[in-house]
Amino acid sequence: MTRSSASGHPHGQVRQAPPAPDTGLPVVEELAGLLAGAASRPDPEPPGGGPVLREAACGYWSRRGLRCHPEDLVASPGAGPLLTALLAAHGGDVLMPRPCPLTWTPQARLLGRPAYHVPTPAECGGVPDSYALLETVRRVRAEGGRPAVLLLGVADDPTGTVAPPELVREACEAAVGEGLHIVSDETWRDTVHHPHDTVFVSPAEMCPDDVTVLCDLAGAVTPASWPAAVARFPVGAPGAAHRARTLDVLTALGADLPGPLAAAVAHALDEPEAVTARNAAATALHARLAAEAHRVVLAAGALALPPEAGRHLYADLGPLRDALAVRGVTDSIELEEHLTARLGVPVPGGHRFGDELGALRVRLATTPLLGATQAERLEALHADDPLDPPHVARALETLSAALRGAAPHPDRAHTAGGNRR
Amino acid sequence: MTRSSASGHPHGQVRQAPPAPDTGLPVVEELAGLLAGAASRPDPEPPGGGPVLREAACGYWSRRGLRCHPEDLVASPGAGPLLTALLAAHGGDVLMPRPCPLTWTPQARLLGRPAYHVPTPAECGGVPDSYALLETVRRVRAEGGRPAVLLLGVADDPTGTVAPPELVREACEAAVGEGLHIVSDETWRDTVHHPHDTVFVSPAEMCPDDVTVLCDLAGAVTPASWPAAVARFPVGAPGAAHRARTLDVLTALGADLPGPLAAAVAHALDEPEAVTARNAAATALHARLAAEAHRVVLAAGALALPPEAGRHLYADLGPLRDALAVRGVTDSIELEEHLTARLGVPVPGGHRFGDELGALRVRLATTPLLGATQAERLEALHADDPLDPPHVARALETLSAALRGAAPHPDRAHTAGGNRR
Repeated sequence: MTRSSASGHPHGQVRQAPPAPDTGLPVVEELAGLLAGAASRPDPEPPGGGPVLREAACGYWSRRGLRCHPEDLVASPGAGPLLTALLAAHGGDVLMPRPCPLTWTPQARLLGRPAYHVPTPAECGGVPDSYALLETVRRVRAEGGRPAVLLLGVADDPTGTVAPPELVREACEAAVGEGLHIVSDETWRDTVHHPHDTVFVSPAEMCPDDVTVLCDLAGAVTPASWPAAVARFPVGAPGAAHRARTLDVLTALGADLPGPLAAAVAHALDEPEAVTARNAAATALHARLAAEAHRVVLAAGALALPPEAGRHLYADLGPLRDALAVRGVTDSIELEEHLTARLGVPVPGGHRFGDELGALRVRLATTPLLGATQAERLEALHADDPLDPPHVARALETLSAALRGAAPHPDRAHTAGGNRR
Repeated sequence: MTRSSASGHPHGQVRQAPPAPDTGLPVVEELAGLLAGAASRPDPEPPGGGPVLREAACGYWSRRGLRCHPEDLVASPGAGPLLTALLAAHGGDVLMPRPCPLTWTPQARLLGRPAYHVPTPAECGGVPDSYALLETVRRVRAEGGRPAVLLLGVADDPTGTVAPPELVREACEAAVGEGLHIVSDETWRDTVHHPHDTVFVSPAEMCPDDVTVLCDLAGAVTPASWPAAVARFPVGAPGAAHRARTLDVLTALGADLPGPLAAAVAHALDEPEAVTARNAAATALHARLAAEAHRVVLAAGALALPPEAGRHLYADLGPLRDALAVRGVTDSIELEEHLTARLGVPVPGGHRFGDELGALRVRLATTPLLGATQAERLEALHADDPLDPPHVARALETLSAALRGAAPHPDRAHTAGGNRR
């Protein structure tokens, strides 16, 4: 277990990271049309989302076997304010897997809350190993702490893995047995790369009274430039009280969805053909890129779990430590700087995900492999094989060269007369 | 001085209050057109706002004598997340006037920070009395606290008053002399009812190195259904460091402006004719309603400072205490329930603004007087005198009756055969 400092501001954290999980693809026309049509809407959307939006979110979850009523839900402009409000509404110390998504530790810190990172099983990220979880709970209590909330992600953000149901069940039962409430981040559940081969089971199906589900809609439903998220509280009195407190915090934060966006977000949650077709195409595209990026990582001599969902993978360059040390790269801050400079896109180091600074880990994203311009990205989307367009092949070669440590800095390559490769 | 509890969540706070200061008027067509045109924008606006938006905000402040560069500014989706980030970035205990805006106390609480309310001078709300401020600072220090930030509003939200420059200067000099940083909420500066008679001077002109200016654009620039706010940090190294920390918190919060809104907000900050004309018309409309509501308050035997800006006034029903007690109204929670039921719109009690529960104070808003429908509001906007339309006259009569305590509950009036008045 690693305890993050709960004091102070999250200075120096995540500044250059992308603000939302981005497919890199254009806004679905049908949604853009709805937003344009609502541009003159004068009335603000109420805090927590109005009835139309919550009814649509209810349908979204009901189609996934999670029955609910609109009054069990809240909507907010993005997962950030919503998770902050959920944590504020609960009180107590926060446990989360290691690695965890980029903003979880700073959000706990913002509230002045200790955040404890629990190691994950060997098979996957996103859920804590149940024995490690129990040990952490005991140690936190022995220190005088009050473990209260466990954050987890079955379809995990940094590693792109999907935790097998039996591991999820073990973690959830351990957590609930210790009196923890679980916040299940299901942002990536609809981006499973091979739905026939990968089983996703929500903790809310296993422990319905003790799980709040959080979903950043930018994962699979709405455009990344529209901050929107929804949360589903357990049905019943404790869930209702938690929801009321969450809504109070969202109100105090002034975290309201812009009025004109609300109708378009509600429509996206109804999952019309245009939205599901786009998500299917985007998922297939990113699945292909993720599999190839994984191959590149392994071929370079580094390690990563095979990605199964979402648009990330988590590479461990530990086996390349000696070669990297020659280049002055000895920890994940230096590795982040090294790879960010070489790839020209943010490559956040493992320290941002709760990992130890000494570990040479980074999160790699598939979106930058799609291309730098809208035209390039559309070319990749419409290609028979997304790896075919030359700019995608070049991006993968650049990734390979950067991981092997063989690529000089682009500026130096230029001034040295282009002797790269 | 009153110390709010810094522990716990802001349960029960502000739930039924409106999420943003609303003119009640339609979205300016030119702005709606820009939003509609940007509906397909795929890329998220970067945290803190992109260069176009910050350049526009820079122009807005430069036209008001507050020179700055885009790199001295941040933008966010509404004043709530921005003030939260400003407070988180500063650390220390927070001082604010009594009464203060609705969300300030819950925001300080959210961060686990003590909030101290300092009495205001007799002439106005929004700025603390300088002697009371110095006494509060001394007492907080004697308790082991660390006073660090003073929030104030020269054009004040709850009272609608504009503090005279000499009182602002005394408060600011006292605060700076004690090492406090000042956050000046200037949301209402462009809604001064009679600009030729009322002088607004920003604390940032008086103490340029020690003042961060915060402006919720829904005050006078953008529609209330578009959450958008900007902050201007002091020019120089300490301001830049504070800005960087604020940006980190906004990033962790995921408080990003939706991409499609950013261009329209930037255009509004350029203050084209359509925006300034609308604000002038809305300001004149609300000024007339506020003056009449003030007359109604005084005629009912209650007290209120004459409103000079914005869309609120702050009524003290203390002189009506005996009559209210007969109706079971003995504190501001009961007064809030009583008037909210009678007027059919939220009438938040003084306890929500940091005032003592025993004081019979409420914040009244002018927007509900405009009418319940868009058509009624436009009728009031276009009338020779906004008081002429019958629905406005009725709304003022209902306010008068409610304040006099003479109005039975509407439901009871109905069942009693409509014997009201």
